[in-house]
Amino acid sequence: MSGDDDVPLILTWDDEAERPDENGVGNYDTVNNVNLPGPLDSRSQSSLRQSWEMNYQEAAIYLQEGENNDKFYTHPRSARALVSYMFVHNHLFYLMELLTGTLLMVLSLAEPPAVPSLRLDVYVHATLELLALVLVVFELCMKMRWLGFHTFIRHKRTMVKTCVLFIQFIEAIVVLVRQTSHLRVTRALRPIFLVDCRYCGAVRRNLRQIFQSLPPFIDILLLLLFFMLIFAILGFCLFSSNTADPYFNTLENSIVSLFVLLTTANFPDVMMPAYSRNRSSCIFFIVYLSIELYFIMNLLLAVVFDTFNGVEKVKFKSLLLHKRSAMEHAYQLLLSQQRPDGISLKQFDGLLRFYRPRMSARDRFLTFKALNQSGTTMLSLQDFYRMYEVMGLKWRARRSGEYWFDDLPHTAFLIFKGINLVVKSKAFQYTMYIVVAVNGVWILVETNMLNSGFSWSSFVPWSYIIFLTIYGVEVLLKVSGLGPVAYFSSGWNLFDFSVTVFAFLGLIALAFDMEPFYFIVVLRPLQLLRLFKIKQRYRNVLDTMFELLPRMASLGLTLIIFYYSFAIVGMEFFADVIYPNCCNTSTVADSYRQVNVTIGNQTVLEEGYYYLNNFNNILNSFVTLFELTVVNNWYITMEGVTSQTSHWSRLYFMTFYIVTMVVMTIIVAFILDAFVFRMNYSRKNREVLDDPEDEKGVVFETEVHQAEALHTLDLYRHTLVGTNLSSLQEMCVTMERNRHSSLVFMGRRSRTKSDLSMKMYEEEIQEWYEEYSRTNLPQPEGIHRDLDTSCPTQTNN
Amino acid sequence: MSGDDDVPLILTWDDEAERPDENGVGNYDTVNNVNLPGPLDSRSQSSLRQSWEMNYQEAAIYLQEGENNDKFYTHPRSARALVSYMFVHNHLFYLMELLTGTLLMVLSLAEPPAVPSLRLDVYVHATLELLALVLVVFELCMKMRWLGFHTFIRHKRTMVKTCVLFIQFIEAIVVLVRQTSHLRVTRALRPIFLVDCRYCGAVRRNLRQIFQSLPPFIDILLLLLFFMLIFAILGFCLFSSNTADPYFNTLENSIVSLFVLLTTANFPDVMMPAYSRNRSSCIFFIVYLSIELYFIMNLLLAVVFDTFNGVEKVKFKSLLLHKRSAMEHAYQLLLSQQRPDGISLKQFDGLLRFYRPRMSARDRFLTFKALNQSGTTMLSLQDFYRMYEVMGLKWRARRSGEYWFDDLPHTAFLIFKGINLVVKSKAFQYTMYIVVAVNGVWILVETNMLNSGFSWSSFVPWSYIIFLTIYGVEVLLKVSGLGPVAYFSSGWNLFDFSVTVFAFLGLIALAFDMEPFYFIVVLRPLQLLRLFKIKQRYRNVLDTMFELLPRMASLGLTLIIFYYSFAIVGMEFFADVIYPNCCNTSTVADSYRQVNVTIGNQTVLEEGYYYLNNFNNILNSFVTLFELTVVNNWYITMEGVTSQTSHWSRLYFMTFYIVTMVVMTIIVAFILDAFVFRMNYSRKNREVLDDPEDEKGVVFETEVHQAEALHTLDLYRHTLVGTNLSSLQEMCVTMERNRHSSLVFMGRRSRTKSDLSMKMYEEEIQEWYEEYSRTNLPQPEGIHRDLDTSCPTQTNN
Repeated sequence: MSGDDDVPLILTWDDEAERPDENGVGNYDTVNNVNLPGPLDSRSQSSLRQSWEMNYQEAAIYLQEGENNDKFYTHPRSARALVSYMFVHNHLFYLMELLTGTLLMVLSLAEPPAVPSLRLDVYVHATLELLALVLVVFELCMKMRWLGFHTFIRHKRTMVKTCVLFIQFIEAIVVLVRQTSHLRVTRALRPIFLVDCRYCGAVRRNLRQIFQSLPPFIDILLLLLFFMLIFAILGFCLFSSNTADPYFNTLENSIVSLFVLLTTANFPDVMMPAYSRNRSSCIFFIVYLSIELYFIMNLLLAVVFDTFNGVEKVKFKSLLLHKRSAMEHAYQLLLSQQRPDGISLKQFDGLLRFYRPRMSARDRFLTFKALNQSGTTMLSLQDFYRMYEVMGLKWRARRSGEYWFDDLPHTAFLIFKGINLVVKSKAFQYTMYIVVAVNGVWILVETNMLNSGFSWSSFVPWSYIIFLTIYGVEVLLKVSGLGPVAYFSSGWNLFDFSVTVFAFLGLIALAFDMEPFYFIVVLRPLQLLRLFKIKQRYRNVLDTMFELLPRMASLGLTLIIFYYSFAIVGMEFFADVIYPNCCNTSTVADSYRQVNVTIGNQTVLEEGYYYLNNFNNILNSFVTLFELTVVNNWYITMEGVTSQTSHWSRLYFMTFYIVTMVVMTIIVAFILDAFVFRMNYSRKNREVLDDPEDEKGVVFETEVHQAEALHTLDLYRHTLVGTNLSSLQEMCVTMERNRHSSLVFMGRRSRTKSDLSMKMYEEEIQEWYEEYSRTNLPQPEGIHRDLDTSCPTQTNN
Repeated sequence: MSGDDDVPLILTWDDEAERPDENGVGNYDTVNNVNLPGPLDSRSQSSLRQSWEMNYQEAAIYLQEGENNDKFYTHPRSARALVSYMFVHNHLFYLMELLTGTLLMVLSLAEPPAVPSLRLDVYVHATLELLALVLVVFELCMKMRWLGFHTFIRHKRTMVKTCVLFIQFIEAIVVLVRQTSHLRVTRALRPIFLVDCRYCGAVRRNLRQIFQSLPPFIDILLLLLFFMLIFAILGFCLFSSNTADPYFNTLENSIVSLFVLLTTANFPDVMMPAYSRNRSSCIFFIVYLSIELYFIMNLLLAVVFDTFNGVEKVKFKSLLLHKRSAMEHAYQLLLSQQRPDGISLKQFDGLLRFYRPRMSARDRFLTFKALNQSGTTMLSLQDFYRMYEVMGLKWRARRSGEYWFDDLPHTAFLIFKGINLVVKSKAFQYTMYIVVAVNGVWILVETNMLNSGFSWSSFVPWSYIIFLTIYGVEVLLKVSGLGPVAYFSSGWNLFDFSVTVFAFLGLIALAFDMEPFYFIVVLRPLQLLRLFKIKQRYRNVLDTMFELLPRMASLGLTLIIFYYSFAIVGMEFFADVIYPNCCNTSTVADSYRQVNVTIGNQTVLEEGYYYLNNFNNILNSFVTLFELTVVNNWYITMEGVTSQTSHWSRLYFMTFYIVTMVVMTIIVAFILDAFVFRMNYSRKNREVLDDPEDEKGVVFETEVHQAEALHTLDLYRHTLVGTNLSSLQEMCVTMERNRHSSLVFMGRRSRTKSDLSMKMYEEEIQEWYEEYSRTNLPQPEGIHRDLDTSCPTQTNN
């Protein structure tokens, strides 16, 4: 390790000598420009340290930008911007953004038409809204400080947000003044505040993807609508002479009927009047459905899937190159004038202190070791390129022995060893499968025998207790046989464990008469899921399912945002128009009827129930919109609302159908793409996947010698006064105590989609890099050209 | 060209010296084995010619087998087998197969329960059936003669067919004896006779694909059903205490309800009773639908799509290699002892006379020229490998001039030239688009104004005649400007032409009071389709659509075959169980009700119409099954039938649902695959597709010199006495008359999927060939090993 006298190759944010940062050029002090005097000459130690700290911080910011796919033109350009940047980029601020966004959206629960139990007075909810909006204003001001005015107004999303904010502000004040809500359709724009917040990046990506898929989608949609129109004219000509046919009596009805037929929601019914008069009229409907539903609709999926397919790869590529560029920027900032061809541990450690403040000194040291493949004391750019791969690693000393109970006394060792062997045996596994299967059959038979209706408020069948005991014993055996660490590292075991523990908790709660009824009923069959471990395909499917979950969740959130906007519009226009017996003039009157019918001498309430699908508050609206998404019988809601308002209402429902069709098609395309990708991947790496080691995720290994550890500890003590070095000390102590001359550490993290993609596109990635380094020589803000001579590593790679 | 004294390198079907053909080895006379005496020595000219004819025929058979993907173990092994082979492999026989197969299927229109207007007496339809079955027996006997008994009984499909035939035979006789039809569910197996016939190869391929996709499909289906079961138990536990809820009152109902919910057919209804009691119960349904409908159902598609994807490529590869092997076999048979390194025109011509009997002598010559790339008088194996590419070509002499009217007098030339320029101008094209658009709007407005119902039995709107006149003029201009040949070579023009001509015919028919009403109504909007020519994407989509049509038709046929089997079973069990007011005890009674209701003093017939969805005859069954395929409200039919029979009937409907789900998933996967393939293709060959020449399909060009032509004519006159040489003579006469020393001929055919695949997999194909030639040296029946020394071309390539 070198001394403290390194001078940074590049100086950043030199406030005293701030140069104009127009066009982003000249943001750095280059060695050439500033003409620094020799090391330790006029610059004092503390000022040198300070400039290093600055460099560490900026390098950390670059890495962050690479990770978050933030463009470099939003990079802070001055020390003042840096302060705002640091203020804006921390979890507290993110959380505030999220909370204000959520608050604004949640407010619609309390604004009229409100959920009855959550209704608030006008001045309360309007004040809350104003408060939230003021917070948003504050956030925007901070962002402006960071970005500078010019960048700020060129940032489209932020500008839209500002406009919406302005409108909302005025409206909120109007509401406060008038003490009553007016027609506030603009509330439908509120999700923009949520979408814009940092934690909702995935939602933004989804929205972008939706918009990218739109042009081809709309083309095919036009084709669809065109055929619909042709068939509507045809249907009108053919069937309007039949007075018993309400579906085709006017051209408008004809179009609406065929639109609904597109969703199949009115299928046999729409055909029946014509069919009963002339059997051959079924040809019209069969041809229509074959063309529209079975051909063009699938075409829609094909087109979206194709766009999706291409976009995914392009996105991955640009993200990869962006990260690479970020790493190059960061690398430059960590070079010192004395040693311009690598980064020493000291600089790397400084970077990590900013980039991952929570990381312990030991882990920082181990990360450096993991990156340092050459074995020299320096990290080359080539080493540094793997920065993002090693960031999420969790480090742990590899145990010297095979089992967790190696250090126990001999008797205990033998017992645990026995349990270990039992638990790992095929026989044990298959016995458990059989138990689970028997349990499944048991539940089925038991439930079937309770034909008179179900009720066990305090009565728990003995079978339940028996099976639960077996599962409990199994969990205990496995935990003790494999050791807690190995046991809980498998997702399946975690699943087993939590289901069993929750079931026990439920049982205990039941004993105290707390009736966690649903709890137990739901948990019981969940055990059966384990049966799907048997077959490789199911394991694949379920693994992929878990890998997809975060992405699915973000897609779900995207859907909810669309729902929210439509719910607001629906509430503004259709609140309280639907009630029992409301639509007696429409063709769907039956579904809304609620009458008392006297059969014999019993009075029975005959309910149509559809009056429940209304827009009376936001929760009801969400359920109604979900029903519209599922599509079946959606026209009943549409016709009901239409009969109570005007026939323009249909536009709302049709638009909603098309929007959900887009989102749903994207979801289907996404699932298709993810699975096909995964299957291709496992086909390509069949031998790797069979390797159980690979299933544990990405693993790095590094060996630390005692001398090295002590040396590092010493270095840290020397340079980082006052920081917490307990993790490093502990490592040294462990070595001392066990009299090992070295310790092997394993860094482990779960595999991400990006890792899979890296492996899938292995060959192409090399090409991309070459192309990138050819066309896009790393020149942040145009200064590296001057450095090319002094920094050979950069052009060599 | 050489003389007549060539002796075949290999002799085939030497009847006098027939050797055992066990294991398919030793089917050929090799030169080494037979030890032939010198040429023209003991063998007479005629016997030599005869053995050449034999070789030509066998080579042609090999090529046919390669084309049809027939395996070589069914290759005829003796002269006797050859006779049966020739008998079995001609279009008359194929047609007979098709007709008997169709007859057997069509019979169910006339068998009870018959379509009323087609009912036949028992002895008539039973006799017809016996007749058809006797024909099938005859066909099978011919096949057995060709294949030999051993191969015959090892051929699985044929054995199944024989068994079914046997059963059908007995049953037909029983029907004749008893003079009444019994429960003949086995009629559901009749499609096997149709599927087995030569023309239904595409259907067989589809069925194979369906069966290949089944294993992964079933895995995911089990997952689906498993979750369904868990949720059914859960639903029963949660909702059975609600007496107003008929959907979950027993476990069986609970399962059925959730199965139907899987198809969304009962969606909001099934939720409503529970939802009206407790709003949070909607969570159960939302979670169920999210998991089952939006996740696992899409998984099904993903899995099938993935299998499909892989299978398509494997199929293409095996077909390609099979063809290659067939060509190698054929090539060997055409080599002569004197010149073992190539095929001369004479031998090639002999092959084509058997392989394509209808091809004219000129075309045979031109095909040889097209293949012969080296310019020598011989075809090497490398040339011969392109055999299948040149087979479908249509040859035409290239016109010397640019326009068809080049040879007309000057005035006429100028007029046509002017028309040509007008027709080709952008302005003309866009004017026509505008006319079509105006026409579209006109139709819409006109139809919308006829709100009182539509009727123009003899009244034709003047706008129709005006637009039709414009279209007529356009067609005339285009035909005269471009020339008929150029005009009709474009599919779009053909479409325009036929629509316009049919519209005129309709108008004329209308003038004679024939009221071809539908005709005109349908044709009018079809013109609007032209608007989709404007955008590249639509052209792509529509082109792909036309390319897919044959495959879609075969998929449709496959679906119909499934329909047929289900229709037979449905008719046998459910015929006449559904009638108006039949199901008053069921929950769906309303849909079957047909009552007279008195409103005020008017009596109105209130119809439920669903009694029309019955299994009373095969046509009704088909419509009912189509409705079940569309899925919406299918449970009404199911519940209706169930209430009239037993609850086991549900099994029929559920099975049908699952089967159609498989077929539909395959159709979706197929469309997806085809489109994604097509889009990838056009992305890969963007520059090629923009080239208009490429859109015309595959084009070969060859130049024929006068001397060459005369020499060939002479050769043909000499060797082929009595054959029709008029085409060759005509060619020579044309050259003579126009005083051209040479003529260029163009061979053209439309591009097939196989051509596209060839281009897509270009690189892989080379690898496949290499691998093939490494592992599978061309050794038909093990004799070519002896030839390796005498035939260098074969190992060189």
